[in-house]
Amino acid sequence: MKTKLALTVLAVMISGSAAAKTWVLTSAEQGVEQGNWKISSQQLKFQGKPFSIEQKVLHGGKQEGSKIITLTSKDGLTITLSPTRGMNLLHIEGFGSRIGWDSPVKEVVNPANINLESRNGLGWLEGFNEMMVRCGYEWTGHPVTADGRLYTLHGKAGNTPVSQVEVEVADAAPHEIRIRGLIKESTFKKADLQTLTELRYVPGSNSFSLHDVLTNHADYPHDYQIIYHSNVGTPILEEGARFIAPMSDISPFNDYAKTGLKNWQTYLGPTKGFDEMVFNIKPLSDDQHKTVAAVVNKQADKGVSIQFDTQQLPVLTLWKNTDTLKQGYVTGMEPGTSYAYPVTVEREQKRVKQLEPGASTAFDLTYTLLHNADQVAAVEKRISTIQGDTKLTETETPIASE
Amino acid sequence: MKTKLALTVLAVMISGSAAAKTWVLTSAEQGVEQGNWKISSQQLKFQGKPFSIEQKVLHGGKQEGSKIITLTSKDGLTITLSPTRGMNLLHIEGFGSRIGWDSPVKEVVNPANINLESRNGLGWLEGFNEMMVRCGYEWTGHPVTADGRLYTLHGKAGNTPVSQVEVEVADAAPHEIRIRGLIKESTFKKADLQTLTELRYVPGSNSFSLHDVLTNHADYPHDYQIIYHSNVGTPILEEGARFIAPMSDISPFNDYAKTGLKNWQTYLGPTKGFDEMVFNIKPLSDDQHKTVAAVVNKQADKGVSIQFDTQQLPVLTLWKNTDTLKQGYVTGMEPGTSYAYPVTVEREQKRVKQLEPGASTAFDLTYTLLHNADQVAAVEKRISTIQGDTKLTETETPIASE
Amino acid sequence: MKTKLALTVLAVMISGSAAAKTWVLTSAEQGVEQGNWKISSQQLKFQGKPFSIEQKVLHGGKQEGSKIITLTSKDGLTITLSPTRGMNLLHIEGFGSRIGWDSPVKEVVNPANINLESRNGLGWLEGFNEMMVRCGYEWTGHPVTADGRLYTLHGKAGNTPVSQVEVEVADAAPHEIRIRGLIKESTFKKADLQTLTELRYVPGSNSFSLHDVLTNHADYPHDYQIIYHSNVGTPILEEGARFIAPMSDISPFNDYAKTGLKNWQTYLGPTKGFDEMVFNIKPLSDDQHKTVAAVVNKQADKGVSIQFDTQQLPVLTLWKNTDTLKQGYVTGMEPGTSYAYPVTVEREQKRVKQLEPGASTAFDLTYTLLHNADQVAAVEKRISTIQGDTKLTETETPIASE
Repeated sequence: MKTKLALTVLAVMISGSAAAKTWVLTSAEQGVEQGNWKISSQQLKFQGKPFSIEQKVLHGGKQEGSKIITLTSKDGLTITLSPTRGMNLLHIEGFGSRIGWDSPVKEVVNPANINLESRNGLGWLEGFNEMMVRCGYEWTGHPVTADGRLYTLHGKAGNTPVSQVEVEVADAAPHEIRIRGLIKESTFKKADLQTLTELRYVPGSNSFSLHDVLTNHADYPHDYQIIYHSNVGTPILEEGARFIAPMSDISPFNDYAKTGLKNWQTYLGPTKGFDEMVFNIKPLSDDQHKTVAAVVNKQADKGVSIQFDTQQLPVLTLWKNTDTLKQGYVTGMEPGTSYAYPVTVEREQKRVKQLEPGASTAFDLTYTLLHNADQVAAVEKRISTIQGDTKLTETETPIASE
Repeated sequence: MKTKLALTVLAVMISGSAAAKTWVLTSAEQGVEQGNWKISSQQLKFQGKPFSIEQKVLHGGKQEGSKIITLTSKDGLTITLSPTRGMNLLHIEGFGSRIGWDSPVKEVVNPANINLESRNGLGWLEGFNEMMVRCGYEWTGHPVTADGRLYTLHGKAGNTPVSQVEVEVADAAPHEIRIRGLIKESTFKKADLQTLTELRYVPGSNSFSLHDVLTNHADYPHDYQIIYHSNVGTPILEEGARFIAPMSDISPFNDYAKTGLKNWQTYLGPTKGFDEMVFNIKPLSDDQHKTVAAVVNKQADKGVSIQFDTQQLPVLTLWKNTDTLKQGYVTGMEPGTSYAYPVTVEREQKRVKQLEPGASTAFDLTYTLLHNADQVAAVEKRISTIQGDTKLTETETPIASE
Repeated sequence: MKTKLALTVLAVMISGSAAAKTWVLTSAEQGVEQGNWKISSQQLKFQGKPFSIEQKVLHGGKQEGSKIITLTSKDGLTITLSPTRGMNLLHIEGFGSRIGWDSPVKEVVNPANINLESRNGLGWLEGFNEMMVRCGYEWTGHPVTADGRLYTLHGKAGNTPVSQVEVEVADAAPHEIRIRGLIKESTFKKADLQTLTELRYVPGSNSFSLHDVLTNHADYPHDYQIIYHSNVGTPILEEGARFIAPMSDISPFNDYAKTGLKNWQTYLGPTKGFDEMVFNIKPLSDDQHKTVAAVVNKQADKGVSIQFDTQQLPVLTLWKNTDTLKQGYVTGMEPGTSYAYPVTVEREQKRVKQLEPGASTAFDLTYTLLHNADQVAAVEKRISTIQGDTKLTETETPIASE
């Protein structure tokens, strides 16, 4: 019956260019909501690497009504994301590994069940378990009361149900898949920032990319900030795992992180009492402003890399949260326009960017699940090439106090 | 299938007097929820002006689960309101015109997705796009922290899903339609204010009316405030459009509005940097305490008028928000018990009213879509008659500081 | 059709030991949500006292999407609880009486429609109408701003949709019924307290019991507090009704309650202007740490008793809210680890408990609907026996200021 339903949907919903089929799963504007939904390469009679894309509505606890989309590529990656949570990436599996971590928060919490202002602006932590959360765009960073109001931790995008969801599959082999979601941060008199997120994946591949376009729909310039909070735990993160990236400067986020500065390159195993250490990094990039950061395991045969553009995302936060497994043993690579300081600090230090009326800006990131020693070595080599002769400055004093 | 469903509903849900048919679309008490639902004059085998009434459940973005009811009168008005948002009126179309405006907020935001306390009490702005919002009844006005708590912008009624929704259609021509919704503001130890809202419309007409009855169900007296925040943009609002109403006094709400006092009668076109100017008006009325205010276009052949009762709603706020189209080019006529100052100011200045235990009070307003020069002239004449010889006092100093 | 559905469910969902049948109604982990659902002893072909268990999804107003489960025992009790509201007990009927009360809040408010932080931490009052609310476990008590954040009234458990709901019915007569619900208070870096609640009932009986197990799933010790806020109104509560419990000490919660100290044992009828008086009690218990408290009517032929364990729940709050019927004429017996003071006071006075990593603690309470003079007399006798020769100290000075 599910197949029949999906075929009906096929007949009704297909649109787009001759070169690709498009399904609209959700559209606030057009009044569309597919709910539980699935397509597969088999149904589409596509040869080549088999895949399926499925949307499910979740139930129970604080995830009541949350939706997830799972893209499954039999020989490649299984990518799970949530339209209810700003197209955040929940976890990625494949090649005997995964990108993701185990948070004490197990459910895909529906933002209707979160008060971001609770816990003095830390309500965001009640839903945090993703492999990648968009922290922005109206503001980001640690909570602060300023301008007579509370700026809550890491903004609202990651807790915003998206207004439009589309799945597109290219007609031609290798049938690239694109999943788009529209995040609206629209408030009368305050903001009209809209982000069209797009995930691209070729079945069978060990990497996928994000292509997000943020547009200021208002008639006035508007500030924006973004941090792509990208998180990885076991099996890649382990004692002796390493963080690698080309950089000119690294400094501790706060006094507590000072003691970890000299060991920023390596990770501890799960360590009771560790809590978290955060480092601010100024990444280096190649001639095309491209750079890459990675976490690789001790044996250097597993890892995850993120390629990004330093013109789009000029700073990089390293979050080492190697506490116990149950507390959430995890590290974050966080390319951004800002560090994780409160918006007040980011303003002072001139990292808050602005979009002119009608203007757009793009963010392009490629995530790769490294699953053998050659792949790890290739990333190491690329990082080394970008680093070149540039000497790394390790600064002991945080650039700001929290 | 929808027809069949509706007919079943007909059979099951009809009740009420011999003089009218009643459908219960939602009842928290009786456990009724019709979801998507429709009736039409054709199904009912009614002669005369054709009409339909339809309820839809919306999806996507922050409007997930919101419901709207659309009353369509082929030769008259199409009225759209939302049971999920306190029976607020979204927009009215007809006679080649409309009452409504274009907010940057496009969705019918489900209050479950709004935190009214966010942005220091301005969370209300994340859902504001209606032609008419009920601002009350427990409190209204600009946010203020007082009594150790935050009074959020314009109260809660407009962001309260109603507990009971009924549609009633008179058996006899011209088949007057009534749509009722019950807003409960019930909090243990704090309030038990319940408002039974009713919209009345005769198919084919260019006007409709609201008849709201607020009852204090508690055993103690309770304060209440209400502002009927009624908003209009293009095509009625334009450069050279005029605001007209009989009044004894007008004064600027704050210092910024002082500069606009001398031009309160006319509107600018969309004006970058204008933001908003607000004026406090003491309306005049006829012997039956009836008065009327209107916005008319430059050519005086289009407009919208609101008739209200100055014993029920003694003050009138004029909100001129003639900023750019994208920011929300709009003006508000806001009959109320209060001006838009914080409840603390309204208390000091004795405009906060009180209901005795078990007591009720009614609010009756008639909205008319003026669609030719004669209709506009008739309203102008009526206003002029009510104004009579009374001289208008323009006071330059705001009656309060915000 | 409902029967057919239920039978299918039977076939699919039955699990558990040979000794009992288990139905999973909700499971966030396994992706189960039964929605409207029912079983009956008749369907199960059970002899003996007939019963049914039904889950309903509610609609309308602020209860949209809330679920209730009603256990109906024809000759015994009808117990209604809500999985959406932390398995709180709504009301109990049977034997011509009831345990419950009439709050001005009539709906089973979906927590998605409540902001607990509103009204300076009193948002909880917008949903309060239960016969028993779990006030905990991360914190409880009156709201207070401390540690830079707001601790809202009575914590979050009672406003948390449960993650797992199971119904179990013993194969063997008398077919004991168990209804379990899992409350997760899991927040990254803050808490991972999980409470598996269980209600047990034997068809035909006039009593039921709760067996809740709270587990600290984190790797660090965590504070917890709990108050079982158990409330009763008419017909048991009336002028001349009495509160009885064995105790060594009683004192007023605050200055207002001082004037009611000498009459703590008896209740007024509905009394305008009474508001509430709260008393702190140190209960006595028997050799097995068991104690019992009760409210009995004037004629001593109706009542409700709660048996609990003073090692688990060492303190008892008596809440006398004998205001008018419409305001909520009600009294609460509230066994707890804490009194109702803010967490800051409870910490100072050493009543906040702590759970080691991985550790669990149980709370066992038995509620009995006393429906004749013998039953009331038996409870009175038991209380008298536990009291023995211990003299009660009535202290006039509150142990803390609010």
